[in-house]
Amino acid sequence: MTEIIVDPELVEAMIMEMGAIGAHSGTGVWRTVYSPEWVAANGLFAKWCEDAGLAVSTDAVGNVWGKLAGSEGGKSIVSGSHIDTQKPGGRYDGTLGALSALIALKLLKAQFGQPRRTLEAVSLCEEEGSRFPSANFWGSRAITGQIRQDDPATTRGYDGETIAEAMAAVGLHPSEIASAKRDDIESFIELHIEQGPILEHADLPVAIVDAITGLRHYAVTLTGEQNHAGAFPMDLRRDPMAGFAEIASGVINTAHRLGRPAVTTIGRAEVYPNGSAVVPRSVTFTIDARHPDPEKRLELYALHETLMREVAARRGLDITWDIQIEKEPCLSDAALVTTFKTAATTQGIPTLTMASGAGHDSQQMAKIAKTVMIFVRSKDGRSHTPEEFSSIPDIVAGIRVLAAGLHALAY
Amino acid sequence: MTEIIVDPELVEAMIMEMGAIGAHSGTGVWRTVYSPEWVAANGLFAKWCEDAGLAVSTDAVGNVWGKLAGSEGGKSIVSGSHIDTQKPGGRYDGTLGALSALIALKLLKAQFGQPRRTLEAVSLCEEEGSRFPSANFWGSRAITGQIRQDDPATTRGYDGETIAEAMAAVGLHPSEIASAKRDDIESFIELHIEQGPILEHADLPVAIVDAITGLRHYAVTLTGEQNHAGAFPMDLRRDPMAGFAEIASGVINTAHRLGRPAVTTIGRAEVYPNGSAVVPRSVTFTIDARHPDPEKRLELYALHETLMREVAARRGLDITWDIQIEKEPCLSDAALVTTFKTAATTQGIPTLTMASGAGHDSQQMAKIAKTVMIFVRSKDGRSHTPEEFSSIPDIVAGIRVLAAGLHALAY
Repeated sequence: MTEIIVDPELVEAMIMEMGAIGAHSGTGVWRTVYSPEWVAANGLFAKWCEDAGLAVSTDAVGNVWGKLAGSEGGKSIVSGSHIDTQKPGGRYDGTLGALSALIALKLLKAQFGQPRRTLEAVSLCEEEGSRFPSANFWGSRAITGQIRQDDPATTRGYDGETIAEAMAAVGLHPSEIASAKRDDIESFIELHIEQGPILEHADLPVAIVDAITGLRHYAVTLTGEQNHAGAFPMDLRRDPMAGFAEIASGVINTAHRLGRPAVTTIGRAEVYPNGSAVVPRSVTFTIDARHPDPEKRLELYALHETLMREVAARRGLDITWDIQIEKEPCLSDAALVTTFKTAATTQGIPTLTMASGAGHDSQQMAKIAKTVMIFVRSKDGRSHTPEEFSSIPDIVAGIRVLAAGLHALAY
Repeated sequence: MTEIIVDPELVEAMIMEMGAIGAHSGTGVWRTVYSPEWVAANGLFAKWCEDAGLAVSTDAVGNVWGKLAGSEGGKSIVSGSHIDTQKPGGRYDGTLGALSALIALKLLKAQFGQPRRTLEAVSLCEEEGSRFPSANFWGSRAITGQIRQDDPATTRGYDGETIAEAMAAVGLHPSEIASAKRDDIESFIELHIEQGPILEHADLPVAIVDAITGLRHYAVTLTGEQNHAGAFPMDLRRDPMAGFAEIASGVINTAHRLGRPAVTTIGRAEVYPNGSAVVPRSVTFTIDARHPDPEKRLELYALHETLMREVAARRGLDITWDIQIEKEPCLSDAALVTTFKTAATTQGIPTLTMASGAGHDSQQMAKIAKTVMIFVRSKDGRSHTPEEFSSIPDIVAGIRVLAAGLHALAY
């Protein structure tokens, strides 16, 4: 196929114009779902879709679709990502995937005319859960029929408002959410910033994602005996801090030893009573363990649980845990992975194949469609912050891979 | 010498009557300095001193003294402890030492008449700092001349009130604190509950304390790089939680390996930003390290500091620490230790010799007098709680050792 041509200045101008909506603290963006900024961003996305000659529609939850009908009809090939942000996030997380889909469809139409298969670009309404903490993936869950009838009235934001109220305030209809479900999507391709340092360390602009990691969150409580820090000898203590330190070292070392892509994080810990001269009574903490391999993740979890039981028993501590989040790995469609790796090769763009350690809308879309993701290099692996950054050359490379793959699928 | 006779029923009755003043949650006592309960407790102590034929006086901060003048005059031999409690504490911490001194002087007078040397029992006004956090050792600091002129007006309680206001409210005169200083105390002997499990594990009622531990509090901040828990591979992280866990394990193991009486405690830790899916940016924590040996404590601190530097450097973390508390060990007077060990032997009471891991008024009194302490066995090593408990037979044993030692010194 011919080279896909992307205008870097147009890409940069669109990123900057979209990033100005909800601009925050210099390079940041604060654009929570159903906020005035979100309405404005969706409006701009719709306008640009129209300008590109796409047929625009908005569904019941506020996902905005731009369709380029194929000559053969049939199920759609869809690309996009979410337009909402963290508080504040940056210009790239989510938004880049929606803009890239729009730019890809626009240039394919301009360069190659009407496709055989129907292509759609989508701006998904909400992924981050930054206004309504339990509403994450609201847009992709609506498309895949995973929102229950009572969810809109029971999903509350940090300020106590329900998501139903927030929807109504921007002219959407919570009672019609079921109408957003789609059963005519064959494939979903999501371009996203990597949010990690792997591409940067490999000195490559783009990756094809062959899986989204499985993850488990443990909430653990380790209880011992609270004692005076001076009067109680070491050999008679049942110190949950000593047990916690051993477990934290152990699970972190286990993931490190297993090697990429295994990761285990202790991000949260609370000590009770948290006095400097008191042997604590308890330490509660979280373990976030992730692996994209369906078998190896279970091995990782089992190693962590064995260690926790062993340390607690040896130290005479009580241990309890709840599994607060359990997400199965989401494997990309193997044929789509091959299609997009080949597409990159045809464009002369070197890539690597990797798993995503973060969750994405694609996980939801995988319930109704074949999926694959394209990652664009992140500066310093940062995201969810105004400092997140991807260079225009890297973004252009990502869009060229996306467009070339869509071309291979749809033309 | 003859056997010292102590009436267990009298001892129990006095403990219960004093413990009823500020009684809290069953077996607890809530009696902060300069509260109505504290006034009542001091009044009862003074009354009992008078009943015992002691000459009673109250100094400028509210320490109550009961004196049994010796035929030879000269410097005093003083025994006592503090009458204030935690919020709530129990019936024994502090109060037992004041009551034991009073009981010892009463029975010595009854059994042996006037002493050669002057004996005094004292109820110290405040040790715990439970109402005015920076006022701990207020009573013994007044006696040893360690309260500065502006302290009363600048020492504020948890409710904002100054200690000067609280003193005035109970008829004391903050401007006269300097008059509480004593320069005529030769020896100070403090009986106290152990607050630890060492006597219980040794199956002994009483210990002679040959040192009060030295202690150092470190406030440490370990800073790395905040990252996404999924997208950042283990081998590229600078995770302060991993460093904290290694340091916490290390310092606890060091103290354990050095053996009694070394103790090191991590009682307090705060994680930032403390999110379950975020590799933390920083962990701040305290290290409380104690050893009563003037040389070995420095070895303990040096081992901790070496480990902290090594772990931080190896893991690419920034580390800073402040030393928030530094207390030198307080060695008991060797002759007094021998006197009270011998006194116990003469009474047929088995003892062990140990260091105190907690701080006590004796540390202050050591600035002007020779000191020694007597520990009475604590149930389960507990204190600073309504559940603290020492048995009447153990308390009687402690009072007999105290009285026999005072007899040896003063008759």
